[in-house]
Amino acid sequence: MSGERNRRWVLRARPEGDITADDLELTELAVPELGEGQLLVRSDFLSMDPTHRIWMSDIDAYMPPIEVGDPMRGRSWGTVIESRHPEFQPGDVVTGGQIWEEYSVLDRAERIPTELGLPLEAFTSVLGPTGMTAYWSLLDIGEPRPGETLVVSAAAGATGSVAGQIGKIQGCRVVGVAGGPEKCRFVTEELGFDACVDHRAGNLDEQFQEACPDGIDVDFENVGGDVMDAILGQVNNHARVVLCGLISTYNAEGDWWSPRLFRNILFRRLKVQGIIITDYFHRFGEALPILAQWVLDGRIRYRVDVVDGIENVPQALSRLFEGRNIGKQLVRVSAD
Amino acid sequence: MSGERNRRWVLRARPEGDITADDLELTELAVPELGEGQLLVRSDFLSMDPTHRIWMSDIDAYMPPIEVGDPMRGRSWGTVIESRHPEFQPGDVVTGGQIWEEYSVLDRAERIPTELGLPLEAFTSVLGPTGMTAYWSLLDIGEPRPGETLVVSAAAGATGSVAGQIGKIQGCRVVGVAGGPEKCRFVTEELGFDACVDHRAGNLDEQFQEACPDGIDVDFENVGGDVMDAILGQVNNHARVVLCGLISTYNAEGDWWSPRLFRNILFRRLKVQGIIITDYFHRFGEALPILAQWVLDGRIRYRVDVVDGIENVPQALSRLFEGRNIGKQLVRVSAD
Repeated sequence: MSGERNRRWVLRARPEGDITADDLELTELAVPELGEGQLLVRSDFLSMDPTHRIWMSDIDAYMPPIEVGDPMRGRSWGTVIESRHPEFQPGDVVTGGQIWEEYSVLDRAERIPTELGLPLEAFTSVLGPTGMTAYWSLLDIGEPRPGETLVVSAAAGATGSVAGQIGKIQGCRVVGVAGGPEKCRFVTEELGFDACVDHRAGNLDEQFQEACPDGIDVDFENVGGDVMDAILGQVNNHARVVLCGLISTYNAEGDWWSPRLFRNILFRRLKVQGIIITDYFHRFGEALPILAQWVLDGRIRYRVDVVDGIENVPQALSRLFEGRNIGKQLVRVSAD
Repeated sequence: MSGERNRRWVLRARPEGDITADDLELTELAVPELGEGQLLVRSDFLSMDPTHRIWMSDIDAYMPPIEVGDPMRGRSWGTVIESRHPEFQPGDVVTGGQIWEEYSVLDRAERIPTELGLPLEAFTSVLGPTGMTAYWSLLDIGEPRPGETLVVSAAAGATGSVAGQIGKIQGCRVVGVAGGPEKCRFVTEELGFDACVDHRAGNLDEQFQEACPDGIDVDFENVGGDVMDAILGQVNNHARVVLCGLISTYNAEGDWWSPRLFRNILFRRLKVQGIIITDYFHRFGEALPILAQWVLDGRIRYRVDVVDGIENVPQALSRLFEGRNIGKQLVRVSAD
């Protein structure tokens, strides 16, 4: 394989506001020779995540930004096609690639437990970092109790869809927030949420009042902005806010959004806690069998939203910020 | 005593911005006859607290606002002068009054354990609600660990002064924030904080960098505003923010302040938790012997800032918002 063409996305410019096609460039390079202990993985799926927008900006975030000219950082799942590593052989399905590219040379990888009888798509989503984010954020930080009301924003997305279903398993009344009737239908009918607030339909306060007659005890927050402002107006005393994402403000050109009712953290004695899933990598093994069983039992459903072709990364990425994806946004890398 | 003159403060108008003399009125009424089971208490001290400003506004806070025309809600400490209650007799020192007035007719009160050998001033401050706020907020929410850096804003105030000293007992590096060299000297020299940032001296970022070379692990926040913005820029990952007050914004005429770096709650995985001391009233008994022993051992010092004369309540109250008090702000009610 060495010498074959490898296509890889590179950050060409820092976006101002929305990501544009000029910010990313698909470059070509050659697959290098494997060294001792290395393996060559052909990407099957690339992960598209809201956090990519954070990494593209030169701000003081939880990881260093991607430098202009550097490859785009991003998880991939793929198949080993050559191995000089004693623990891997061709055909193994793994994750470990950290660049949006067709072929990755890796020193280590994590084997996907295909013996569980679930497709690779499950491991990119409900059993991958987004599902793990849902699991650990909700249970470790959100402290949901039976009978409480849990609100989940971006409820049709990769993380929110799983968080809400775990909330149902915990015995909560679960109210999603999503954009448009199609997503809301998905959230209530396919995922089994009790209600869904359509943030495109206006009247957020009234919609939340109707959907949450007993107030809000846990906010699983992925979005920020007007939706979170409305939620902070209706949280109960001692509510927990799991701050998992703020996608509504990632494209902000000036200051990022801050909540209008910050004071309610004081008045209502809220706990607002941020989570970045890297802090829980070492605990994925604890959650995997539990989540996998819930999926196998049909208690958790998942969906992936696949765009074909590595050349279509920009389009796939923009789906996240335009709110067009349902479930985990992926790019399937065509074998060509 | 019945029929004697009782002077009482009444809310005359809702303040717009700063409290003015026109917002409060000192009224006169007669002390009523005691009913069976009641006691008559002559106020010795009235408690002046930042939260009074919250109660004077018609906003959705943690308690209903004081209605215009109603007596000013506020704790008092005093001496029983008549009793038709089986458990109290004249001379008992109690707290229980909830109005800024000279004489209170109460159905119940809490006896001050004068047998501990501490003056009443200690029970109005370090052993009263502000000291209890410091104790429970820091230990139950702040989770300070030895060697960590604790920042306490309004460090010369009733709550901050105690919180910082408890932080020292827990083995933290403790950095206060106060306004002006006199307060900073009090905080470091009298209270034993390791350093003090003078928020009136400018260069907040540089001052915090110098005072907190290892970053900030716990923020005991009483103030909000520019000080908190600077702190949120220098908190470590997994820091805890105890949101105990936001005095810098209580007088705001429009929107209340929100932090510029709200996003750091996410990026640095902060826990930001609000506390209102009413949630801990039932646990005062646990903390009292511990705090009292620390005071008796000289490990915690306290100061009260006394204005004489019930007629001087407005001046005493304004000291809080002008940052002029050192220690607990009280009004001593003259026996006239």
